[in-house]
Amino acid sequence: MHFFSDNATPVSPPVMAAIIAADRADHGYDGDGWSARLDGAFSNLFETQVSAMWIGSGTAANSIALACLCPPYGGVICHEEAHIVADECGAPGFFTHGASLMALPGNGAKLTPDAVAARLKTIRPDVHQQPASAISITNATEYGLVYAPQEVAALGEIAKAHAMGFHMDGARFANAVVHLGCAPADVTWRAGVDILSFGCVKNGGMIGEALVFFGEAGEARAAQAARWRKRSGHLFSKGRYCAAQILALLEDELWLANAGAANAAAQALALAASDRLLHPVQANELFLRLTSAEAARLRAQGFDFHDWGEGAVRIVTNWSQDAQSVAPLARALVALGDPA
Amino acid sequence: MHFFSDNATPVSPPVMAAIIAADRADHGYDGDGWSARLDGAFSNLFETQVSAMWIGSGTAANSIALACLCPPYGGVICHEEAHIVADECGAPGFFTHGASLMALPGNGAKLTPDAVAARLKTIRPDVHQQPASAISITNATEYGLVYAPQEVAALGEIAKAHAMGFHMDGARFANAVVHLGCAPADVTWRAGVDILSFGCVKNGGMIGEALVFFGEAGEARAAQAARWRKRSGHLFSKGRYCAAQILALLEDELWLANAGAANAAAQALALAASDRLLHPVQANELFLRLTSAEAARLRAQGFDFHDWGEGAVRIVTNWSQDAQSVAPLARALVALGDPA
Amino acid sequence: MHFFSDNATPVSPPVMAAIIAADRADHGYDGDGWSARLDGAFSNLFETQVSAMWIGSGTAANSIALACLCPPYGGVICHEEAHIVADECGAPGFFTHGASLMALPGNGAKLTPDAVAARLKTIRPDVHQQPASAISITNATEYGLVYAPQEVAALGEIAKAHAMGFHMDGARFANAVVHLGCAPADVTWRAGVDILSFGCVKNGGMIGEALVFFGEAGEARAAQAARWRKRSGHLFSKGRYCAAQILALLEDELWLANAGAANAAAQALALAASDRLLHPVQANELFLRLTSAEAARLRAQGFDFHDWGEGAVRIVTNWSQDAQSVAPLARALVALGDPA
Amino acid sequence: MHFFSDNATPVSPPVMAAIIAADRADHGYDGDGWSARLDGAFSNLFETQVSAMWIGSGTAANSIALACLCPPYGGVICHEEAHIVADECGAPGFFTHGASLMALPGNGAKLTPDAVAARLKTIRPDVHQQPASAISITNATEYGLVYAPQEVAALGEIAKAHAMGFHMDGARFANAVVHLGCAPADVTWRAGVDILSFGCVKNGGMIGEALVFFGEAGEARAAQAARWRKRSGHLFSKGRYCAAQILALLEDELWLANAGAANAAAQALALAASDRLLHPVQANELFLRLTSAEAARLRAQGFDFHDWGEGAVRIVTNWSQDAQSVAPLARALVALGDPA
Repeated sequence: MHFFSDNATPVSPPVMAAIIAADRADHGYDGDGWSARLDGAFSNLFETQVSAMWIGSGTAANSIALACLCPPYGGVICHEEAHIVADECGAPGFFTHGASLMALPGNGAKLTPDAVAARLKTIRPDVHQQPASAISITNATEYGLVYAPQEVAALGEIAKAHAMGFHMDGARFANAVVHLGCAPADVTWRAGVDILSFGCVKNGGMIGEALVFFGEAGEARAAQAARWRKRSGHLFSKGRYCAAQILALLEDELWLANAGAANAAAQALALAASDRLLHPVQANELFLRLTSAEAARLRAQGFDFHDWGEGAVRIVTNWSQDAQSVAPLARALVALGDPA
Repeated sequence: MHFFSDNATPVSPPVMAAIIAADRADHGYDGDGWSARLDGAFSNLFETQVSAMWIGSGTAANSIALACLCPPYGGVICHEEAHIVADECGAPGFFTHGASLMALPGNGAKLTPDAVAARLKTIRPDVHQQPASAISITNATEYGLVYAPQEVAALGEIAKAHAMGFHMDGARFANAVVHLGCAPADVTWRAGVDILSFGCVKNGGMIGEALVFFGEAGEARAAQAARWRKRSGHLFSKGRYCAAQILALLEDELWLANAGAANAAAQALALAASDRLLHPVQANELFLRLTSAEAARLRAQGFDFHDWGEGAVRIVTNWSQDAQSVAPLARALVALGDPA
Repeated sequence: MHFFSDNATPVSPPVMAAIIAADRADHGYDGDGWSARLDGAFSNLFETQVSAMWIGSGTAANSIALACLCPPYGGVICHEEAHIVADECGAPGFFTHGASLMALPGNGAKLTPDAVAARLKTIRPDVHQQPASAISITNATEYGLVYAPQEVAALGEIAKAHAMGFHMDGARFANAVVHLGCAPADVTWRAGVDILSFGCVKNGGMIGEALVFFGEAGEARAAQAARWRKRSGHLFSKGRYCAAQILALLEDELWLANAGAANAAAQALALAASDRLLHPVQANELFLRLTSAEAARLRAQGFDFHDWGEGAVRIVTNWSQDAQSVAPLARALVALGDPA
Repeated sequence: MHFFSDNATPVSPPVMAAIIAADRADHGYDGDGWSARLDGAFSNLFETQVSAMWIGSGTAANSIALACLCPPYGGVICHEEAHIVADECGAPGFFTHGASLMALPGNGAKLTPDAVAARLKTIRPDVHQQPASAISITNATEYGLVYAPQEVAALGEIAKAHAMGFHMDGARFANAVVHLGCAPADVTWRAGVDILSFGCVKNGGMIGEALVFFGEAGEARAAQAARWRKRSGHLFSKGRYCAAQILALLEDELWLANAGAANAAAQALALAASDRLLHPVQANELFLRLTSAEAARLRAQGFDFHDWGEGAVRIVTNWSQDAQSVAPLARALVALGDPA
């Protein structure tokens, strides 16, 4: 049973059905009927007028968002373990033409207002230093922690006070919203977020994520992003297959159902390994203290997962699982006994 | 009946079947079993050891190829109506970090050795001018003309003599090969091509093209391209769905069958409109002299296509058609009578 | 006697005197007293409030200007023989992060409104093509022709009508103004120019040109340009030596006196070779029909100049010459007799 | 008396004399006689064949060096307080097209082999992470500390073992060499350095630094750097004025004499304030514990310097001073009495 990553899963059946339903001739690029419905679908979801578009990958979505918010000579305040820092081979530098990532530490890959404010104080306004032009956070974080609306808002206020843009990497946005039980609006634009990378692939999609632009500047930024999308080779000629996937996830709240299943699976495992948790489990990732012998024991039973440094492992649940289907791993974890 | 573009078509059924067959958990990115088979499949096809990878779009494939062949301070000799010049919003400039496209005129969007040689003579070797670092051609061209092996080889010799890279945009490579009836190798590496953008989407794919790297430097270039792919957000986390499409096109020569159908459809139309042709019809595109009244008459009968400037139209056939299925348009063209 | 280029000359004595006068401790970068006077000096010269700064070279000045006017996905309409196209090793592509130069033909390296308007019509507004974001002209041109105020204004109107920026490469702006006898304002901001590269080095300076920002957007663009200047390594730590040179050129109209001497020298030579002129002589450059035997005869007498293709040469006069000092070359030209 | 920075000083008299001596017509750019002598002069200095060129500023020199050593998708290991990180407005990101600076902590802005080795261990070799492609150190550091030859060599061995380039920012290289009393070769190429930014402006120059390329790859890198220099607008048309400055500094070991004077001045002050030193004084910078009242007392006596955070100041001596000329400040420091 795979617990490597939620990006290695198959496609959620309604998403595949939507792909097949889109399999007929239509206009190319984003001139098709599915793409045309994205603005409306996301405006409904977020209870406000937004601009939305499909983008090939989360890396591209994040980078294009940052390129809309940060000039080449600027910087983006983010966590040092953020995906944009650690796992995108410098894509933000490519898309922004050399802007810097101003990486900060913080528990569970969360940025705190204090840390951001302290960093801002170190930057001189002269031309020798790069101004901080944007803040980027990941929700849920790379360690499966979730920013609550008031936590996002606290960062949003700093962004606003310093005329900085505010981006949220929502590769696991659905998992965060399910955990919070709040309106998607509460944890995004109502808390000051300007652009959201709305994750689909980890939550049952095949190829394609969504970028959502909020606020007054949203439409102009989306127009600019459309240029970056083309320029970076992400304007697929059969874009309707991306749009259809996204619409399928939004329909009947499939995106929440899928994330809910993954979160429930994670909770079941967290309960079974409560004394091994390195971080609270709020979304669909668990980081566990596990000796290499213990890890080997689990693997021998057919459970696969990544090591996470010395004496720890990462376990990721996904939309195709639930509390019941991961029960074998839960039992195996309990059977390991007390941690060393 | 749509004749707008071959990129607006549905997906070829065996390709869709392959996508569905790939719909099970596997390793992410290009760590899956399908992606691993690409090198071998293309090595068989090209009768030599090559490196191959999937890339999200033709624009990205072309640009990454050029980034492997041309430094930021260099230039790429190409046709002034090439897709990389006219339809990619400057993507080559983005991926190469500012290299120039050295655009030349030429009938039917074809580069001639004489034109290339003449352009090379104008470039001083000093640091004030950009050196020509690569040649890029499109086969079949944007006007549906096909470079024969000896034509490619003549350009390949110039490239080699001047230590330039040689890229072929093969968005419609299949249509070219079908027209030529030659081995794919004859019109690529045997003629000096270093990197080929092997088109899939226009020929029945959904999302994803292939980049094929030839020659001794191929493997190192592919390793570099893998960095560009990640860095530009084109390393999809469920890449197996791209790889599976490409493999499906190669299997049982589906790629040639699909292109053959499109070419046959184009020939049927060319026969019907032989006195209106602006260019010889060799692949799956027709450029016809047509008054706006004539165009309107056809459109009134349900045939859709793009205008191509004043008094001309472009008609593109595709894999889902053949001589028989386009017979209605052929008859309608004949019924227009002699051109004005 | 050198007629290679006006950039190979020594420094005008008052400029050297100003450098020596600036040779005392002051604040670094552009925090010194000389740099602080640039805005005022150029505001006086141009009879309006402008922002001005020193930049290390004309290439940097041009590129930074274009980076202020054109996004990475845009294009700059310019002449195909413009310095930015032919002699800067792609610097505009570097500074703009990949914007395209949309090069047009035209006699004497001059852009015509008709040519610009025709080019604009070919650009579709969709995301597949790069929008034309700026026009750049050189005054005097690379062939020594001068745009009159009304000619500049005609281009300026097109720029304004299409929301494009308008840049003037004034490497030989002084020579143009002397030829026109107009106010500097007439041929720049009153004619719609947004940013001027004000040339100094060819006109008696050592190192350093000026960028002048006009209009309402000028101050914001200058602030942005200050970032580019730092980021490209052009914010010299002892910038006062640049500022002092520029101020020396402006003082007592030295810039006009120097250009006047060069222009007068060119006129004297033009008179002597009137039946050999390939272009009218309006500034300080002559392009002459000359067989290689004739060129050799002149060189044997100690006159040095560049060939300009087959059967032609380029002769450039400079601030250190005048009609009298170039009389030997004038006589030698006359002595060649009628052209072949 | 200014102690703000060594970059605010006037020009060393022999340098100014050399500028004046170069004030006659010669070939443009770097085609002149002075530029041609740089390779030889630096080859003598470093006791091996090197390639050398002038560059407008230290920021440009550093960035061009890094662009020669690090691909756009790579990273440069450096100190978090290095000039390239803190004071160049992201110039390395601009010139390298988005490479990352991998900044490490360390006392006195020095990198340690252990810190570098530990950082290297965190980088996975997959395409998701940027490889460390180069190491860059500053000698003397931004805190006036000097790397000894064996310290440089220890880093050079790591660089070599990991196929990384090795750059030294030598803005104050002269001060370091004077402190060490070693051959310039010992602390550069013999210790594995590939490219040196050889500082001139802080040591008595006006405008222009030198880049020195060592080793087998040096010539090819220099050829590439010449492209970057042009492309970034740093190939001044009257480059001989830069070359002449550099040659003047090398002649009769003026560069060592100037740095020796600055270092001696710093030692005199260090002696006077030995109980206030935040870092050992090895070059020409002092960082002193000083209350704001104490700082005010010194400033009231005419001594100017920058604050360095709370309760500390930075004092920089320069080539125009020596132990005797800074004696007034030394006395004033002593007169402050014991530190609080």
